[in-house]
Amino acid sequence: MRRIRYFAIVILALALAVPAWTSAQPANEPIQPIKAVKPANQELVELGKMLYFDPRLSKSGFISCNSCHNLSMGGTDNLKTSIGHNWHKGPINAPTVLNSSLNLAQFWDGRAADLKAQAGGPIANPGEMGFTHALAVDLLQSIPGYVALFKRAFGTERVTIEEVTKAIAAFEETLVTPNSRFDRWLEGDANALSEKELAGYKLFRGSGCVACHNGPAVGGNSFQKMGVVEPYKATSPAEGRVAVTGKDADRFKFKVPTLRNVELTYPYFHDGEANTLTQAVDTMSRLQLGKKFSDEENANIVAFLKSLTGDQPTFTLPLLPPSSDLTPRGHPFD
Amino acid sequence: MRRIRYFAIVILALALAVPAWTSAQPANEPIQPIKAVKPANQELVELGKMLYFDPRLSKSGFISCNSCHNLSMGGTDNLKTSIGHNWHKGPINAPTVLNSSLNLAQFWDGRAADLKAQAGGPIANPGEMGFTHALAVDLLQSIPGYVALFKRAFGTERVTIEEVTKAIAAFEETLVTPNSRFDRWLEGDANALSEKELAGYKLFRGSGCVACHNGPAVGGNSFQKMGVVEPYKATSPAEGRVAVTGKDADRFKFKVPTLRNVELTYPYFHDGEANTLTQAVDTMSRLQLGKKFSDEENANIVAFLKSLTGDQPTFTLPLLPPSSDLTPRGHPFD
Repeated sequence: MRRIRYFAIVILALALAVPAWTSAQPANEPIQPIKAVKPANQELVELGKMLYFDPRLSKSGFISCNSCHNLSMGGTDNLKTSIGHNWHKGPINAPTVLNSSLNLAQFWDGRAADLKAQAGGPIANPGEMGFTHALAVDLLQSIPGYVALFKRAFGTERVTIEEVTKAIAAFEETLVTPNSRFDRWLEGDANALSEKELAGYKLFRGSGCVACHNGPAVGGNSFQKMGVVEPYKATSPAEGRVAVTGKDADRFKFKVPTLRNVELTYPYFHDGEANTLTQAVDTMSRLQLGKKFSDEENANIVAFLKSLTGDQPTFTLPLLPPSSDLTPRGHPFD
Repeated sequence: MRRIRYFAIVILALALAVPAWTSAQPANEPIQPIKAVKPANQELVELGKMLYFDPRLSKSGFISCNSCHNLSMGGTDNLKTSIGHNWHKGPINAPTVLNSSLNLAQFWDGRAADLKAQAGGPIANPGEMGFTHALAVDLLQSIPGYVALFKRAFGTERVTIEEVTKAIAAFEETLVTPNSRFDRWLEGDANALSEKELAGYKLFRGSGCVACHNGPAVGGNSFQKMGVVEPYKATSPAEGRVAVTGKDADRFKFKVPTLRNVELTYPYFHDGEANTLTQAVDTMSRLQLGKKFSDEENANIVAFLKSLTGDQPTFTLPLLPPSSDLTPRGHPFD
C-alpha cells in the first residue's frame, strides 16, 4: 500500500514536471500557430488559381506567378534573384507566397499594401512578366472559358484588372501552412519537437531573434534595418523601405521575412546571398545581435527552424481554358 | 391492334435507321479510341512526376519539362517555338506530351526511339535546359528526399540518368486523354457528336486527311513530307527526318503530329506558323491534298477536330523534396 502511494506520488510529480521541463507555456510564446483557412468564395479561389498558373498573363506567354513563386518549391524559385522577361536578372530575391497574407505589406520594401495590390505588380513589370494590365485584360476577355468563370465569380462578363488581382489574391490567401511540428508543440504536444529543436527554440527566443521574428508568420510584421550592430556588406543595390517612404532612416530597412517553411525557401536574405540556413543564422546573429553562435548552437537553431515547415498547400494542377482564335499569342522574342 | 403493330414497325425501323444515319460502323473506322492507362508501378510514376516538374534539372534552376510541355495547357507551351536556357529561341514547335507514348518515335524528326530516350534530350540541350546528365544526377544525389524515392522505386540509392529518364517516361506514359466526345461516338454513343462535327469527320475521312492522321492518336505513326502537292514555304530551317537518316528523300519529312487535343495545342506545324485550326486545315488541305475547302467545310472539320479533346490528366501538383546544403544552386546568369 505504501509502495503504491509512493509510485503514485512519483508519477504525479513527473506529470507536473513535464511543462516545467519544456519550460514553455505555449499560450505565452512570442510565436503563434498558423491557422488553416476556409475560403469564403471557392469559385473566386479556383479562378485565382488558374490565373496564378497562367503564363498568358506575361508578354512572352511563358512566365506565370508560379514561375517565381513555385508552389512545388515552398512558393519560391530557389534562385538568388529571379529570372524575368527576356532572361532579365531580377534585382531582389523572390519572397515566398506561402503565408504572405500574414505580412504587414507586400514586397521586401512593403510598397504594396496587400496581396491584391501586389498581384498587379509583376504582370506589368518590364523585367518580370513584361506585360501591361490592358493587354492582360484584353487577353482574358478573348478566352470564352475565362469570361464564363469571371461571370460566375463576379457576376459580370467584363474583365478588369481589379477582378484579376482580386481573384489571384483570394487564391494566395489560401496558401497557408498550418500543422508544422513547432505549431503542434505550441498547441501542447510536448513530443512534437526533439530536444535539439527545443534547445534551438530556447536559444532563438532567448538571444533576441524573436524581437523581429515573431507572430504567427515568425516575421513579416515589421520593417527592420539589415545590419544593426555590424553593417551588411551588400552586393545588391536594393535599398529597401527608403524607396517607398523617401526617409533616410529607412535606408536598408526591409520587411522581416517570415521564417515559416524556411527550410524550403533558400537562398536567404533580400539579395539571396546566404545559401544555407547555417550561413543565414550566422550572418544574422552577428549583424543584428552582435553574437557568434557556436557550431552546436547554430545547428540547434537550424533544427528549430526546420520544425517550422508546415503542411504545404495541395491541390489539383489547374487546367487552363484554351485561347480562342482571337487571343493574342505570346511574343517571347520581340 | 393493327395500329399498334404499325407503330411498332415504325419504331423498329427508326431504331435500325440510327446506325445507317450516322453512316458509321465505329469498329471499321480508321481512328480508334484512346485507352485509359493503369500504371504498373505507381511509385515510379510519382517519382517521374516530380522530376517532370523539377526545374533543378536545368542549369538555371528555372526550366522543367513542364515549362515547355505544360500540363495546364494541353502538354505544350502554346508558343511558336520554345524558350530555352538564357531565353534561347528554340528551332521548332514543342510537340504535346499528351498521348506521346503512342508515337512511333519521339521529336519531330523521330531521333529518339521512345519516351525514355527523349527525356534525356532537353536536359542536356544547351538551348533548352542547358544542363548535363552528370550534373543532373549529382544534383539529385545530393537531395535526401530524392535518394529515398529512387531507393523505393529502383532498390538502389545510386542515381543514374537511366533511372531518371525511366521515371520521367513512366510518368509520361500515364498522360493519355481518353473519353473525348469523338471516342464516345466511336464506342457507339450516336449522340456524342453534333451533326456539324459528324459532317466534319466524314469530310476528314473522305478527303484523304485520314491517310496520315489515323490510329488511336490520329497521327504520330508515320513520317510524311510537309508539302506533297504544293511545296511548303518554310520560314524555319528545320529539315526533318533527313537529319536522322541522312537520306535526301527524307528532307522535309516530319512525324505526323497527333490531332488529339489539337484544340489545346496551338500554334500548329513543326514551325508553329499556323495560329488557328482554320488556318492549319486550309494549309494542310492545299499542300497535302491539293484541295480547297469552302468556309463551311473548313468549319465542319474544325468542329470535328475539337471533338478530339479528351479527359486531361488531373493530379495533385507535386511537392518537390528540398535541396540540401550540398545541393548546387541554379546558375541562371553565368
